[in-house]
Amino acid sequence: MHAEPRLERVDLPGRATDVRIGEGLYGTIWAALRARFPAAARCGLAIDERVAGLWPLPPAPADIDVLDITLPAGEAAKTREVLASVQDRWLDLRRDEPVVVVGGGAALDVGGFAAATVRRGLPWIAVATSVVAMADAAVGGKTAVNHARGKNLLGTFHPPVLVLSDVATLATLEARESVAGLAEVYKCGRLADAVLLATLREGPPADPAAWIDAVQRAVAVKARLVEADERDGGVRRLLNYGHTVGHALERVLGNERLRHGEAVAIGMDVAAAIALGRGLLTGEQRAEQRADLERLGLTCDLPAEASGEALHAALGLDKKRVAGTNHVMVLPVGAAGARVVDDVTDDELRAVL
Amino acid sequence: MHAEPRLERVDLPGRATDVRIGEGLYGTIWAALRARFPAAARCGLAIDERVAGLWPLPPAPADIDVLDITLPAGEAAKTREVLASVQDRWLDLRRDEPVVVVGGGAALDVGGFAAATVRRGLPWIAVATSVVAMADAAVGGKTAVNHARGKNLLGTFHPPVLVLSDVATLATLEARESVAGLAEVYKCGRLADAVLLATLREGPPADPAAWIDAVQRAVAVKARLVEADERDGGVRRLLNYGHTVGHALERVLGNERLRHGEAVAIGMDVAAAIALGRGLLTGEQRAEQRADLERLGLTCDLPAEASGEALHAALGLDKKRVAGTNHVMVLPVGAAGARVVDDVTDDELRAVL
Repeated sequence: MHAEPRLERVDLPGRATDVRIGEGLYGTIWAALRARFPAAARCGLAIDERVAGLWPLPPAPADIDVLDITLPAGEAAKTREVLASVQDRWLDLRRDEPVVVVGGGAALDVGGFAAATVRRGLPWIAVATSVVAMADAAVGGKTAVNHARGKNLLGTFHPPVLVLSDVATLATLEARESVAGLAEVYKCGRLADAVLLATLREGPPADPAAWIDAVQRAVAVKARLVEADERDGGVRRLLNYGHTVGHALERVLGNERLRHGEAVAIGMDVAAAIALGRGLLTGEQRAEQRADLERLGLTCDLPAEASGEALHAALGLDKKRVAGTNHVMVLPVGAAGARVVDDVTDDELRAVL
Repeated sequence: MHAEPRLERVDLPGRATDVRIGEGLYGTIWAALRARFPAAARCGLAIDERVAGLWPLPPAPADIDVLDITLPAGEAAKTREVLASVQDRWLDLRRDEPVVVVGGGAALDVGGFAAATVRRGLPWIAVATSVVAMADAAVGGKTAVNHARGKNLLGTFHPPVLVLSDVATLATLEARESVAGLAEVYKCGRLADAVLLATLREGPPADPAAWIDAVQRAVAVKARLVEADERDGGVRRLLNYGHTVGHALERVLGNERLRHGEAVAIGMDVAAAIALGRGLLTGEQRAEQRADLERLGLTCDLPAEASGEALHAALGLDKKRVAGTNHVMVLPVGAAGARVVDDVTDDELRAVL
């Protein structure tokens, strides 16, 4: 007996995304494709290599010709070269023929980018198989590959028409990935869902029904912010809570040493320290967030090897920076909620690092 | 004394394009950038090599750092490699810093694609220097590069915030390019502007004021269709008048032998022949269109070397095609106007080729 599925929707005019979160949805991929594209005789498919090994796709219906390609596992897929190979594989599709992308955040980023740029945009279905993908990458339309000069520097906006998030696939996710993904879920609770926040205080979701609930709530928070500000110039920036310092840590240490969510957890604690200094938060509230994150399996301590010159440079605290330009950061406020500020000074950041 | 400029606007919600058509606008590039982006301390610039030689840009203001790159002249710019070099040049820009793209349709296609994909979309200004660019490529947001398997197979939608079309630059345009571009202008008149159609019956625009008028009218026709149907699934497809056979001819002969507009002129005549066969048009009306196009300097005769197997294959008239699938074409109706039909048969096409 499967846990009850949940539905969400990102209601962007003309480019809405339906999100289904449930247990066993992996087996419904082809039926979902068929329901959404009844006339499709062909489709594209890109699947993360590791996911393909653990979760073989159900066989496609005989009347659908599948142009499939396997992506390198994880972050290694987010290169221009992989993007080009996916585009090449899908070039023969007409622009009303859909593509399906299966995997974690990296697979969805590069597969969505390919979908956005073949014939100026093929409709796509995201099948998310990691916590980060379900709670974050699959929702909001951002697609990307990395560049030698930084993460996600190339990309575009192209929301999928449908997201299938099967929490059953989380059973084979490395425990560390699962924990790291919870940082993004916690972030959504802290920003705008007190129930989610209270639930996560009990520890990580313990069964499929709890995962479905947590993912759906995180998606709902993100969906409302994206609907209000798709292009990320206003309230959507709240989703960057923990990301200013988090991104700098990732740049300095690399994702082998520090997963994205792990870096975000540390970044949220640094932001809380700055908020504490400004009187936006009590010491108790900051300590509570640290305890919450640790209960989820995350650590908030700055890695010893990251607390030097390199981190300062990655944050723009070095001499090359234009004097007088302050930092944009998201700061937590009180027991729940946060705000975007653009006046965090170098000194404030130095003091807490 | 310059001819009076005209303003147009493509009113897509959140992504509107202002279009200025005039004489001497080339000298106003930096003022226009400054007016639109008062705080910009940096911008990107991509300019067609040939245009840069003929029309050196006015010097940028001292307080704007310009990340510039020169594009190979014309269609040679529309490759993945050139796209990557433009992206690389602009990567250091923040996503609120604008880029300027200067040249004909090809430069705008690749420069706009780079603007769309650096940091998920930089705002851009299109400076159009050819008839095709002014009347067609700069308006509607389509960006693209070519692929070995076909033209414009990779691209996305990313409308510029501003288009500057300086008809003075048409003075140095190869006469053949100018005439070819008139095919697209004529098409717009035939679709939805009887005044433009009547004007072009007098022959090509004779002075800057006449060019401004013709370009503005063509832009207005396209703008209204794009506003009604940005993603090209409905009425925007009317703009494909002449393009079914036109694209096939370009594929078979290449753009050295046949410019895009020249191919479209032949394609419009073929479409008129099919419309005649269906009684949508009188023989006189078809002859009138031929005479109109010839008066503009265009020819409607199918090139001898294109009337064989290769053209049939490019149109999907060969055996590989699924039987019973008909062709989508735009057919002219009566003295003015056109409609999209999806039931043109192989036999109808064969009969008129």
